[in-house]
Amino acid sequence: MEILQIDDTLSLKRTVDGGTEEQRKAVKAIISEVRAAGDQALRAFTEKFDAVKLDDFRVTEEEILEAYHAVSSAVVEIITEAAANIRTYHEKQLRPSWMTTAENGTMLGQKVTPLDSVGVYVPGGTAAYPSSVLMNVIPAITAGVERIVMVSPPGQDGKLPPGVLVAADIAGVKEIYKVGGAQAIAALAYGTETIKPVDKITGPGNIFVALAKREVFGDVAIDMIAGPSEIGILADDTARANEIAADLLSQAEHDPRACAVLVTTSRTLAENVLDEVYKQLPHLPRKDIATEAIENFGAIYVADDLEEAVGAINQLAPEHLEIVTENPVGLLGKIKHAGAIFLGRYSSEPVGDYFAGPNHVLPTNGTARFSSPLSVEDFQKKSSIILYSEQAMNENGAKIAEFARLEGLEAHARAVEARLK
Amino acid sequence: MEILQIDDTLSLKRTVDGGTEEQRKAVKAIISEVRAAGDQALRAFTEKFDAVKLDDFRVTEEEILEAYHAVSSAVVEIITEAAANIRTYHEKQLRPSWMTTAENGTMLGQKVTPLDSVGVYVPGGTAAYPSSVLMNVIPAITAGVERIVMVSPPGQDGKLPPGVLVAADIAGVKEIYKVGGAQAIAALAYGTETIKPVDKITGPGNIFVALAKREVFGDVAIDMIAGPSEIGILADDTARANEIAADLLSQAEHDPRACAVLVTTSRTLAENVLDEVYKQLPHLPRKDIATEAIENFGAIYVADDLEEAVGAINQLAPEHLEIVTENPVGLLGKIKHAGAIFLGRYSSEPVGDYFAGPNHVLPTNGTARFSSPLSVEDFQKKSSIILYSEQAMNENGAKIAEFARLEGLEAHARAVEARLK
Repeated sequence: MEILQIDDTLSLKRTVDGGTEEQRKAVKAIISEVRAAGDQALRAFTEKFDAVKLDDFRVTEEEILEAYHAVSSAVVEIITEAAANIRTYHEKQLRPSWMTTAENGTMLGQKVTPLDSVGVYVPGGTAAYPSSVLMNVIPAITAGVERIVMVSPPGQDGKLPPGVLVAADIAGVKEIYKVGGAQAIAALAYGTETIKPVDKITGPGNIFVALAKREVFGDVAIDMIAGPSEIGILADDTARANEIAADLLSQAEHDPRACAVLVTTSRTLAENVLDEVYKQLPHLPRKDIATEAIENFGAIYVADDLEEAVGAINQLAPEHLEIVTENPVGLLGKIKHAGAIFLGRYSSEPVGDYFAGPNHVLPTNGTARFSSPLSVEDFQKKSSIILYSEQAMNENGAKIAEFARLEGLEAHARAVEARLK
Repeated sequence: MEILQIDDTLSLKRTVDGGTEEQRKAVKAIISEVRAAGDQALRAFTEKFDAVKLDDFRVTEEEILEAYHAVSSAVVEIITEAAANIRTYHEKQLRPSWMTTAENGTMLGQKVTPLDSVGVYVPGGTAAYPSSVLMNVIPAITAGVERIVMVSPPGQDGKLPPGVLVAADIAGVKEIYKVGGAQAIAALAYGTETIKPVDKITGPGNIFVALAKREVFGDVAIDMIAGPSEIGILADDTARANEIAADLLSQAEHDPRACAVLVTTSRTLAENVLDEVYKQLPHLPRKDIATEAIENFGAIYVADDLEEAVGAINQLAPEHLEIVTENPVGLLGKIKHAGAIFLGRYSSEPVGDYFAGPNHVLPTNGTARFSSPLSVEDFQKKSSIILYSEQAMNENGAKIAEFARLEGLEAHARAVEARLK
């Protein structure tokens, strides 16, 4: 990590793993196999990739109870409180169907309908992410989705991590299967004897899961395919170096390809943060990952003034943006591109990862230029409503027919004229 | 076209042109060439594919004026009125940024920001589609997008159709280039000397345009890739066979692969519509296209009752749905999957194509199960806002740190604890 000057070519060094040709072929083969052989294929792949033989994939009531016993009551309380905060925030995103009416009898509007069914992928492996369960499931439930199916790869004991099961139960999931990888995505997209297909698949996963989501995209909807985590911090000389460094490192520990960038108007802060990063780094359990991220994808930029600093941030379009300046709210209107914006000293990024309420599924890799956080709207769709009255048709029919003929579509014109006297 | 019974396997016969391997290669080559050689490549491809040599791609003020002279004042008036209707409808989709505040000083919210720039593709060829200009541009302008770039392939005279230019001017486009095909998509995505890149590309096009959009997807955002047009009509014995047949044919004339399906509770209506279709068909200018569509992708289903008919419609999830029954509004709550819903005898589908106000860019190929019509929201994105106060941090910091440790992310916990006393 070093201190750099801002120039026109400023950009986050980013890298997205698109997978190898071999991985793509493997994923395609797994999907075909699941489509052809259903549950039998799921069993075979689970034995092969997760090293466990399962007859029944569905998580039972007993397993949920066991999970509650395996975690402390403090953890249950924290997950419950986090879930309540996430629910409260996402309920604010609900928008009603609406209509307008005109005196001639016309009614126009938009009907909002929840998706019928959604599949949520929860990654397995060494880490368990109850927060990922909450952040994907709660918006779907809030949207009114009736059937939510969770899938996650089992451990070698044939079980899912208790924190994940408790989070799923608190969030309100009733249908959980112990299956992971590309085979789980295939099952969600096309169905098997046990798992009925869904309309949309969300949730993070490894490269095989990401490639499988790309592959089934179109037959079902998918959420964005996330790149490595990113943080951009905009700070002036009121910021504390140890806190800024800790926040940069909290992103860096996620992934060796995570991005952590500070843009500051204060050279002193820049230098102190650089020192602090290398002071705190060696004491982190995930220091190997964090070091790789900081060295390859970390940077500190010094800006001449706040205007230039804000310009740099908009150019970076980071997934997470912290503004730690004298008047962070005053800068909000200038920020154009960021997935989530954390304002002020106490809005450390992990506050948003787990607890505050907004979603932690955010656009990465510069897509904050055109994408939004995961929301209730991702689990609903709209239908336009058009009701034309006889009077409206008599007033406008001839014009509509003329427009159709301008475009060379005679049958359109005649369909309208069939209603005219 | 024939009369069929509803069964469980009911589905629209649909086909989406995914392009050939050769076409995909050609598109990739065009994109690389434009990225490497910029304007020079655009000139070369325009000469090759559009058979016209252009030095300057930008449409001039004089060309706009000429276009106004080339169309009748009646047409200008109709386009102006249609544009006003479309604007009025789409303004209703605008949603404000919002926030919630808590007594402990926390502020949470969602900031809505328009995209910086959008490119709209308008197809060329024999037909000109001013309505496509209005339907793509007006939501973008309503959303607050500052830079809207329109591209469309020139005719052999080096010009764009006057109807398209007039519609663009009425909609408010200030930057129009005479370039089409995959080369236009490449220019919009990556920029050339003349055309600065945009953040999102929308608008329909031929297979080369569709493949190019797929190819640049991720570097920029794109809208849905539309399949052939579809109509589903739900009718009882109150419907008039000649009108229903005319509406089926209005979709069929779009494309030899367009789908036109009637689901009715009345066998008499079914038989009469079948007769009417073959009576009207020979008199259509585009009868060859319509015949192919009706024979291959047309069907009439007879249902036992409205319940079964609605079930069939939800299974089909058509792009356009007409409900021509005794009480169409009463069925609205049962309709789950349709891009646009036209209610009653006078709401003939072409009313929505041009004039009523709702967008005519709609989900095809069953994607109405999870997708929505093009809207203002497609040209905006959201950022989450999180402001935690000192008090909020003191109340919740320990819980957040514990959640982080549950997920094995120690640096997250320490970033929070750096703020705690």
